Amino acid sequence: MSPERLSGAQDYEDLLNKYDTWMFDCDGVLWRGNELIDGVTEVLQLLRSRKKQIIFVTNNATQSRNTYKKKFDKLGLEAHVDEIFGSAFASAIYLSSVIKFPKEKKVFVIGMPGLEEELRAEGIKHVGGSDPADNTLEPFTPSSFSPDPDVGAVLCGLDTSINYTKLSKAFIYLQNPSCLFLATNEDSTYPTAGALLPGAGAISAPLRFALGKNPASIGKPARTMLDCIKAKHDYDPSRTIMVGDRLNTDILFGKEGLLSTLLVLTGITHEEEVFGANPSPIVPDYVTRSIGDFRALI
Amino acid sequence: MSPERLSGAQDYEDLLNKYDTWMFDCDGVLWRGNELIDGVTEVLQLLRSRKKQIIFVTNNATQSRNTYKKKFDKLGLEAHVDEIFGSAFASAIYLSSVIKFPKEKKVFVIGMPGLEEELRAEGIKHVGGSDPADNTLEPFTPSSFSPDPDVGAVLCGLDTSINYTKLSKAFIYLQNPSCLFLATNEDSTYPTAGALLPGAGAISAPLRFALGKNPASIGKPARTMLDCIKAKHDYDPSRTIMVGDRLNTDILFGKEGLLSTLLVLTGITHEEEVFGANPSPIVPDYVTRSIGDFRALI
Repeated sequence: MSPERLSGAQDYEDLLNKYDTWMFDCDGVLWRGNELIDGVTEVLQLLRSRKKQIIFVTNNATQSRNTYKKKFDKLGLEAHVDEIFGSAFASAIYLSSVIKFPKEKKVFVIGMPGLEEELRAEGIKHVGGSDPADNTLEPFTPSSFSPDPDVGAVLCGLDTSINYTKLSKAFIYLQNPSCLFLATNEDSTYPTAGALLPGAGAISAPLRFALGKNPASIGKPARTMLDCIKAKHDYDPSRTIMVGDRLNTDILFGKEGLLSTLLVLTGITHEEEVFGANPSPIVPDYVTRSIGDFRALI
Repeated sequence: MSPERLSGAQDYEDLLNKYDTWMFDCDGVLWRGNELIDGVTEVLQLLRSRKKQIIFVTNNATQSRNTYKKKFDKLGLEAHVDEIFGSAFASAIYLSSVIKFPKEKKVFVIGMPGLEEELRAEGIKHVGGSDPADNTLEPFTPSSFSPDPDVGAVLCGLDTSINYTKLSKAFIYLQNPSCLFLATNEDSTYPTAGALLPGAGAISAPLRFALGKNPASIGKPARTMLDCIKAKHDYDPSRTIMVGDRLNTDILFGKEGLLSTLLVLTGITHEEEVFGANPSPIVPDYVTRSIGDFRALI
């Protein structure tokens, strides 16, 4: 089945009437890098004025919800911390509430300070991460490394300070089969203003390759992210729509969660991936050029 | 078919009579880290006294042949530079002689100085590698990076200074579909005295994952390495034996090259992977505990 292409005020009005909860991916949907996408402010205000529930669902694991909120503020977008679900927060919730990771155990972190902040907030002990001893290009010498016997999981997110010491320590921990292998998310790429860079999935890829096994991934498209939202908000899946720019994360996430899905073309996905000769097997319910198109209703 | 397990002087004598050319993997066969395996010196002398042709075939891409020769010297093992084939050297030969990489083009290197040394010796222009600008944990800002328009290939080997700047630059180059994606080798792990660390294949894994495609790999088990040996030495495959400790590199390399194969158990492979209930599908012709077992003939 082909997706429905939205055009004209009536289409947008129908959608507003059909869905009470609107879940939004952020990068590529609301903004690109540090640039707001045209019309986003007005459209979010429109949704709020119609009493829609708004939830922001991002795989960005480099920032805590508090820091991510500041990005909304800076761009002049209304957002509340409890509306924001990032894969850093979801990872912390997964550890504390879903698998009930033992309080005395520690997580070895490959990731940025925002991930550590969310772990701390959930009372999850952790090592690695921003520790200066692990942020070095000096040669790694196994003989001078004493693995921490309390480490029971390796959690890997986007880490722009990735290096051989972090990878080696993580790999040493993971050679113990009882050590959990977790990833905040598996986005293969990371869109920035200037260029497409390697994403969080690329950062865990060395471990994946060396171990010959995949991590349990927490962000979109995994259900864990939705479980995490469910724990904090009531919503009716049949009246919920997920808006995103990536088929294999956002749209798949919506479909697996039995939500409706709206693809926007302001990010990663090109029109021909949906309407071309060889369309993706992941088919959104609706497609529109930009979330700004809803301005037709203002 | 099960491999033949060697035991007793007659078995070793038979093997010596059957093969004129002896190809050896090094780490796990001749030494472990910086420790010579018992009996190796005498056995190599025995082979030389019987006029056997000796060739060392290593996937180690961090060192040039000249530097690798020094390792033999330090351990008191006789070796000649033209007997040593490493994947750094093979990569340089592959570029210069096999695919005739244009002289005016450049290779972006993720790898150690030994790889750069071999490229230089073959007249291959290169950037990246040990360039201080690429050996940093500072944030990578795409806007301040001007890709070199002459870069026509990314070559990725084991690099213990791997970082996000190198990965990002390589990924930006590789988004141009005409840029070749090459790997010196795909060993998933790198055995050191203290621990098993991530190998060269793990270093190219982020690019593999971000691009969704695999590099052309040059080291064992790829045929390229054998083509490279063939260009320099005459040998008769039916009278050649490859001795190694890894089934999926050394033994597979021998088998794909129509050589006979001898597995030793002083490195990566455990006996049960060959003789256990679920043996590997890669079956060596012969197995012996250690290359030192040939001392039975002395």
